[in-house]
This record gives sequence, structure tokens and C-alpha cells, in this order.
Amino acid sequence: MNLPDFLKIARGDEPADLALRHGRVINVYTGEIIEADVAIAGDTIIGVGPGYEAKEEIDLAGRTICPGLIDAHVHIESSMVTPPQFARAVVPRGTTTAVTDPHEIANVAGATGIRYMLAASEGLPLSVYVNLPSCVPATTMGTAGANLEAEDLAALADLPRVIGLAEFMNVPGAVLGLPNALEKLLAFQGRVIDGHAPGVSGKWLQAYVGAGPGSDHECTTPDEMLEKLRLGMYVFVRESTAAQNLRALLPAVTPQNSRRCAFCSDDRHPADLLDEGHLDHMVRLAVAEGLDPITAIQMATLNAAEWFRLRDRGAIAPGKRADLIVFSNLKDFRAEMVYAGGRLVAQDGALTGAWPMLDVDDSAVCGTVHVDWNQLSLAIPAEGRRVRVIGVVPDQVVTEHLIETPTIVDGLVIADVERDLLKLAVIERHRGTGNVGLGLVRGMGLKRGALAGSVGHDAHNLTVAGCDDVSMTTAARAVGEMGGGLVAAAGDEVLTTVPLPIGGLMSDRPVETVREQMDALVATAHELGSPLHDPFMTLGFLALEVIPSLKLTDQGLVDVEKFDFVPLFTEQFDRALTFSIKRSIIAARGT
Amino acid sequence: MNLPDFLKIARGDEPADLALRHGRVINVYTGEIIEADVAIAGDTIIGVGPGYEAKEEIDLAGRTICPGLIDAHVHIESSMVTPPQFARAVVPRGTTTAVTDPHEIANVAGATGIRYMLAASEGLPLSVYVNLPSCVPATTMGTAGANLEAEDLAALADLPRVIGLAEFMNVPGAVLGLPNALEKLLAFQGRVIDGHAPGVSGKWLQAYVGAGPGSDHECTTPDEMLEKLRLGMYVFVRESTAAQNLRALLPAVTPQNSRRCAFCSDDRHPADLLDEGHLDHMVRLAVAEGLDPITAIQMATLNAAEWFRLRDRGAIAPGKRADLIVFSNLKDFRAEMVYAGGRLVAQDGALTGAWPMLDVDDSAVCGTVHVDWNQLSLAIPAEGRRVRVIGVVPDQVVTEHLIETPTIVDGLVIADVERDLLKLAVIERHRGTGNVGLGLVRGMGLKRGALAGSVGHDAHNLTVAGCDDVSMTTAARAVGEMGGGLVAAAGDEVLTTVPLPIGGLMSDRPVETVREQMDALVATAHELGSPLHDPFMTLGFLALEVIPSLKLTDQGLVDVEKFDFVPLFTEQFDRALTFSIKRSIIAARGT
Repeated sequence: MNLPDFLKIARGDEPADLALRHGRVINVYTGEIIEADVAIAGDTIIGVGPGYEAKEEIDLAGRTICPGLIDAHVHIESSMVTPPQFARAVVPRGTTTAVTDPHEIANVAGATGIRYMLAASEGLPLSVYVNLPSCVPATTMGTAGANLEAEDLAALADLPRVIGLAEFMNVPGAVLGLPNALEKLLAFQGRVIDGHAPGVSGKWLQAYVGAGPGSDHECTTPDEMLEKLRLGMYVFVRESTAAQNLRALLPAVTPQNSRRCAFCSDDRHPADLLDEGHLDHMVRLAVAEGLDPITAIQMATLNAAEWFRLRDRGAIAPGKRADLIVFSNLKDFRAEMVYAGGRLVAQDGALTGAWPMLDVDDSAVCGTVHVDWNQLSLAIPAEGRRVRVIGVVPDQVVTEHLIETPTIVDGLVIADVERDLLKLAVIERHRGTGNVGLGLVRGMGLKRGALAGSVGHDAHNLTVAGCDDVSMTTAARAVGEMGGGLVAAAGDEVLTTVPLPIGGLMSDRPVETVREQMDALVATAHELGSPLHDPFMTLGFLALEVIPSLKLTDQGLVDVEKFDFVPLFTEQFDRALTFSIKRSIIAARGT
Repeated sequence: MNLPDFLKIARGDEPADLALRHGRVINVYTGEIIEADVAIAGDTIIGVGPGYEAKEEIDLAGRTICPGLIDAHVHIESSMVTPPQFARAVVPRGTTTAVTDPHEIANVAGATGIRYMLAASEGLPLSVYVNLPSCVPATTMGTAGANLEAEDLAALADLPRVIGLAEFMNVPGAVLGLPNALEKLLAFQGRVIDGHAPGVSGKWLQAYVGAGPGSDHECTTPDEMLEKLRLGMYVFVRESTAAQNLRALLPAVTPQNSRRCAFCSDDRHPADLLDEGHLDHMVRLAVAEGLDPITAIQMATLNAAEWFRLRDRGAIAPGKRADLIVFSNLKDFRAEMVYAGGRLVAQDGALTGAWPMLDVDDSAVCGTVHVDWNQLSLAIPAEGRRVRVIGVVPDQVVTEHLIETPTIVDGLVIADVERDLLKLAVIERHRGTGNVGLGLVRGMGLKRGALAGSVGHDAHNLTVAGCDDVSMTTAARAVGEMGGGLVAAAGDEVLTTVPLPIGGLMSDRPVETVREQMDALVATAHELGSPLHDPFMTLGFLALEVIPSLKLTDQGLVDVEKFDFVPLFTEQFDRALTFSIKRSIIAARGT
């Protein structure tokens, strides 16, 4: 609201629109809970205290009020729904602001994808800010749909709701001062630059921090978190579907350093959002683990606002945006009423009424699967006696690098379900290059059929694992025919699908529908024999060539520790076996 | 230093310039003290920890290192020396950054004065940032040398080292939304706006905060401080020569809110700077009062840096400016070595070597006293039986509003030293208007002679108090002949002077010289009979028409509570007497 109007009401010459009476207001500045009324006019908090007249009054009868929650880092695409549907899932939970990194759709559609996410997140009950994806593509060892250089990012930097640069994952580029990385860092000097430095420590971490990135959401141990806090980094504690770090990190949070800690969800699937929740889940979890509830709420509000320089929010004070949560229980935080910009947007777990959802043209980010199916061959001619195999680690994104003897029929390597050796293909789907990476995977556990998806971090090529080429081709083509999505198939039969037409990443359906589709799809994968909790989550990370140990891109197998391609066939023995033999020899020698 | 050079050294490919070995490093981010080396190259901290090679090494043998101190709000002019001389006084104390408000010289010379302060503070061992004076003149009831409107301030806003807007003291203008105030607030929306709201509370304070000002350095009680902190204001605890608030405010500082507390010196005279110190004095005082030493250092460093968005300083971390203090005793904080921008700039209380002091052209801010002495008359024709008298409150800037019977000779009101009623004149000195405000003052205590000065907050007109018109004229003319300064005179003899040719506010001499001159001047004032600790400090605030109760400007007497002019002569009885009579009547009635 404009300042003259604010002042008239604030000094008491005109009544406020709304007074929330008899609340217990959490003051995130001082760590106090203060009994007070909160007066609101338009989208703005007018004042906190007694004596405000208002056109409408609500008696909170001693319920607690805190600021709306802020997700410090999220890829909305990972929820597999559009921003309005993401808002439907998280706003009733108390999240009123999210800083999203459209890294996934940018890998498919570049700046067009980023502009789509901005357009699709306008006018929501959720304030969506964008931090620009800093590393598209993640590496040159996979083929993404776009390439964002410093100048491309700079051209987007001054769009409304764009803050700065997201997860700067090119740590070697920053530390070694490689031109491509330096150009991006210098282009965003003075703005918010989020970091992404899992396990980086010592001098490399100090160089990285000095280069610009000032936050990190990849900590997994208290020591790692403390080292980063000591260097002045903000640390976002993460609870995503794939990586749950809160319980491990909480011991590092102290009254002295909590001011630089925040929460983020990173990637959360619909079922987790709907069943567990979002930032509210993290607040509950933190409090259950023993964190002071006001500290937890500060982490979920003010601290993130301060890091992102969102000076109009994160606290309940005059002049701030009226993003508020009313709740009853500090020990079991659950939003009962959620106000965003002064409007009651959610009550008792659901959006109030029909919130207007903008109808955004998504044609520029649909139809993104381009594969010449007639040229596709998944055959692996046998060129040696031993092969490298990607070993799945259940519920992790890291993999093992195994060496196995393949099963060969008619000169071709085939899947062998008895030994849990499935075929894996990564089919380039953006540019129609015809690139197909082929390999083997252990741990998917299918006994028949195939799984395929156009969600394949970070390049999001078409990733297929299966027991035979027919099933794999059926699944892959079904994905293509939907313009993207997830598919389970057996033989020439398509069993279950989740269409994700928007960029091959997001559904155009409501979040509850997507959740049901996903449940059905995972059930089918389990019927086909997979023991994994979420086989499609696992499949989606088998192509991510920046996470150890062995990954497959459309260009081939990548040994992540060497950060280079390696051939499928090898003369090496199984490493674990070799080690085991060595140990036996040592034991026999008695040394 | 540029990023590629930083990175080479940070990752260990090249040695640093300097390594401070075996220090105990205060980590203001986490509140820890960590044994480590600090590596520096150029003006930048390279890293904190073990293993940095360096061209030069210093063994700290367990001494403590903290960031250089930041003064959150100071009027350098009030030290009566130029910025280089101010730096000489404070840098050896550990202050490496000061945010100055050139409010005093702006009242004399407007934008020219501000530009002079910027030029005169370039290239110093002290980083000087400028927050622009928001209220020049303070009111229209006094005649200042300049008038700065929103557009004048906006024209200065993007100069190097300009941050935002300083002490927005026009509280009614902000709260009532008066055009002049709103224009300034809106012109600086999104930038740092410091507040100035002594005693403001309740709805007015909430409206004021919502209007933009986000800090305050005028708190005098813990309750006032807490109310402001709860609204999200940063509070700068002040120890100036005229107002010492630290002991009173410290009880309001808690582990939960200290992150929003900082220190400021506001106005400090040379003797206080040289004898007591600067920010270091505040840290010592706070620790002596029981504040945790690391919290005190956070208040003096990181917290101020965060408020002013000075992201390159306030902590010891890679990439930050190498502003550091080495000291030995946490309980008695005294800087032993001070590094600014990586250079050793002070050691054991003195600047190292001859720090290059820039030779700045000050002609545009000299020769600022314009009075037609031939037209000057200090005669007060008797126009009534009772007069209003300004009552000095020792060591305070507030005054009492007294009613007295004047001594009249030949139809003129004259000073009466027996009753301690001196004559007071405020002579407009900027524009040659011929304005002279005349009145009476009790409490200066002179038995003979007169004191005069061109330092007269905030308009800085020529202020003279004395026992007779001849002494007053002698003193005033001597100030004029020096182009500004402070003078003690008796009869037609000038006794002692402190020339302040720069704007009538600052000396062109070294700080030690000015201190000696001031000591001599105050000794003379004491010889003339004044019992006040610093009679010139008192004199300098008798014209400040925004501080209660009764003040005198060049345009006349101001009743500050009414915020309007009042005549010198009145038919009112003494207020205290009236009250005393009323009370007697009530007591007699038995009600």
C-alpha cells in the first residue's frame, strides 16, 4: 500500500481493514512472545499492539501468530506440478514465500523456461521469487536442452521477482577461476549468490566463499555446517524427498549462530508435500528434536528474509507485508489460518475458496521431447568380457561403480534379471542428436518390463531401465508420445503413465491427481519387481553426472570421481573383489 | 583485490602477503574464539585457518584478533577536526570504519559541505561512509546556511561512499506524511534510512517505522530500546560527549536481540577521543557492565556492517576487507595493532609512520561567517516586567523554561551576574540577514566577560553569552575575524581562541593541538566564573530548537514544547512558582 495511506491508518486517523485481536505474537526480532493485536490494511501490517480500530475484527482468543514461512531454496519443478499447484500444496501449510531455482526447466528450455516459471507464479497466494540457475548445463558431459552463459543470466537479472544466482554448483570453476564461472560470479557481484558445495572444505571452501557464493544447502554433517557458518555462509537446512538432513544438522545450530540458519525443501514430491507438509514439517521436526520453537520459526522466516534481502517480510512489524500464520501449538506447529498480503488465503489445511489461478500459455515449454524413434537402437554389442555397472544405493542419489561379467547372447549384452543386471539407456531428447548412452544397472530390481521418464537430472534426457529392449522401447516411446512423463511398460504394453507435458517435468493436473498417478505408477513398478521405495526418483538421478560414483548420460558412462567418460567395457576386476583378494593375501602373510 | 588474484592465493597456488600466526580469532558469525592463522593479501583476507604460506609472518603468540570496529553514527565535525585528524584519533583505538552524517557542515554549506567531507575523507586509514543529512535545516524557526530538499539529496545519493539517509529527525513530518518529509523518504526507499526518534512511542513510533527509518540512536531507557527493537529497528547505543546512554541501555540487550544492536559515538570532543577513546571505550564499558565480550564486539562490528549493508567487512572471513585489531585482553579491550585494508596502520595507540593525509581544497567551506558588525546591536529594550529565561541543565542538552524579573537600566535589560542572568545572542552568520535573537540564560555562571562560538546546533549561527555588551561584541567579532571558532573575551580583550575556519566548525590543526586549545579555552571560561564542565558544549546547544524546553535562534525564542516562537517578555509567573502555589491551595483545601 502507498505510504500516505499507510500513515493515516498507522497514526490512528482512519481504521485498519482488519484487527486480529488477542493474539500471542511471535517477535522474531527479540525472540519474545507478546500478547497483542495485529492491525492490517490492504496487504500491509499497520501495527502491533493495543488500540487499533478496524472494520473487521477476529478474536484469536490467545492463539499464536507468526510470520508466513519462507522456503529458502526449492525447485518447484521437482514437485511435478505447476507453481499454482505447488502453492495449493504449501500455502495451507503456512508457506507464503518461496525462492525457487528453475534449474530443471532451464535445462530443458533455457530462458524460455525461466520466463514461463515467472509468468506461472504471478498473482499466487504464494510469493514466488526466482534465483537464476547458475549452471545450465551442469557439465558438458551430458546434452541439455539449453546453455545459459553469464550474459543470458544477466539479461534476466532485472526482471521482477528475480533475486540473484542460485546454487553455484560449479565449485571447481569458481575456485580455479575458470572463465565461464568467473563471468557469472562477476556479473552477479553485489547480489545474492547461493552456493552449492557438498563436502567442500578447507582452502577450497574458503576460496569458494571469497568468490561470492554466500549460502549452502548441501551440508550433511554438523562439522560441515559449522565450518560453513564460521566462514559467514548462511546454511539452509534441507528436508527434501531425496535428502533429509535436518536431524543430522540440528546439533550444529546454537543460539549464537542460528541467525544465519534457514530451512529449505529443495525437491519434494507431491506425496511428501501433501502427507508430511513443507516448511511446517521442518519446524515440527526441529522442535521435536529439541530446538527452541521461536528459533525454529526465526529460521523459517526472518533469517531467510535477511539473506535474500526481502526487507518487506519475515517479521510481524509495521510496514511489513501481512503474511501471517495463526496456530495453536508451539510444540506441534500446524497452520490454522494463513494470511498472505492481508488476505485469508488458507484455513484448516486448504486454500479458502477458489483462488484465481492464472491461465498461462505453456506452449513454449510443451512438446519438448524430440527423438527419432526409427533410428533408435538399444543394442549393446559385446566388446569385452567385463563391464562397468551402476550400483544403485537405495534412497540415495550416489551410486556404486561395479565391475561385472555381462550376459551375452548372439554377440549382444542383454539384461539378466536373475543377477539383477538391467539395461539402462539415456536418450537425448532435446535436440534430436540421436545420442543414446547405454549401460547396465544393478539395484532397480525389476523382474520384467521397463521404467522410463523424461525427468533425468540435470539434463533431463529420457532415461530408461528395463529387462528387455521391447519393454524399454515401449516405455520410452510412451514418454515421447505424452510429450514427457513417467511410464511403466511390459513388452509392448504400456501399463501406467504420469503425463508431464510441461517441459517433460510438470503435469498440468492438480497436485492431488499427480499424487494419485504417482502412487499408481510406483505400485506398478513394485509389481514389476522393484523393491525400491520410489524407483522413479532413483531412475531420475542415474544420469546426474556430478554426483558420485558412476553415472550414464546420453554421451556415455561417466566416472564422477575422475570427472571423465569411461568405456562400458573394461579389463579391470571388480574393485571390491580385488580389495577382498588383497586383504586375503595380507592376512595369509600374517602382516 | 581482483577475484582471479584472490583465488590463486586462496587455493594455495601463490603465497599470501602476510600471515598472522597463532592468533585467537573472534568469529562474530558463530560467537566462538578459534585458534587460527589469518592470511592476508593486498587489502583482503584470504583465509582463516592453518597452512597458508606468506611472504611475511607475524607471530601473535596467542593474542586475540577481531574485526576493525565500525562507528554506526558520527558527526565528524563535532570532533572539531577534519576527517584525517579524526582518523588519527580513532584508528589507533581500533575504529576502521565510520558512518558519518555531515549534518553540521551541511547546515553551513549544503551540498558543498557534504562534498568537502567526502573529498577530505578519501584515502584515509579510516573507511568513511556518508549517510546524507535528512533534515537541513532542522526547522524553519532558525536560519541555516543551506536548505537540502529531496532532489538535492537524491543528487548526492549515488556518489561513492554514500549509503543512504541519516537521522530522520523530522518525526512529525514522517508520521503526518508532510510533503517535504515524504519526498525524502520516498526518494530513499529501499536504501538505508537511519532514524532519530527520542522518546517517540506507541502508534507514532509504529507509523514512523513503517515510513522507512529503521534504526535509532536516541534511546535513553531500556523500555524505549526494547520497544524499538521489537519493531525491527536497529538500535545504536550511544556514548557521545553530550549524551552517555550505554550504562542505562545495556539491560535491554539480550542474547536474542543483540544481533540488532550496534554502537555509535554521535558527537565526541577531542579530549574524550584522546583520553577515553572511541568505540573501544564503549566495548570496555559494556564488558565492565557485564556484557559478554564477544557480543560487545559483534555490536561494534558485524551488526553495524549488516545494517549498513557493508558486506565487505565486519567479520574475519575470506574475501572480507582486511580490517583487523590485535589485542590481548578481552576484559580490557585495547587495540595493540590495527590493520586497515591489509596495512598495519596503527600500533600501540599511534598511527604507524606518516600516513599520507590528502591535501584537500577547503576554500569552498571557509570564510563562512558573514555578519555586518556595524549594524549589530545587542540592546534589549525593556518591554515588560517579566522575561522568559533559558535555564541550563548541567551536562544535558535539554533546558528549563524559567520566568524571571529582569534587571533594567536606562530602559534596557542588562545581565545581572549576581542572579546569574546573562545575556544571550544568536547572530545569523550565513546569509548576512542581520537577524539577531536576544534573550537571557541562567546557569552559564560567568562573573565577567563573554563566550562566543560559531558552533551552534543545528543552524550553527554565532552564539554569544556574556555579562555585558562590550565583552559579547568583542567575543563575537573575534569569532568573525577568525572565520569561525570559539572565543572567550572580557571587555575589549580577546582572552583565548580556538580557530575553526572550516565551516566555522572544524580546525585545520592536528587533533592534539585542538585538544590543547580547547583545554585552554575551557580554563579561561572557568576563570571567568563558569562552573560548567564544558561551557562551550552547553553554549553550542542553546540554539537547538528541536530539543526542549526553551531555546533561542537568530529569529527569536522558541518554546520547543509548543514548537513555536514566544516573546521574550511575558506576563506569566514563574511556572514552578505557579505550580507550587496551586499545590499549596489544594493542600489547604484538604482535597
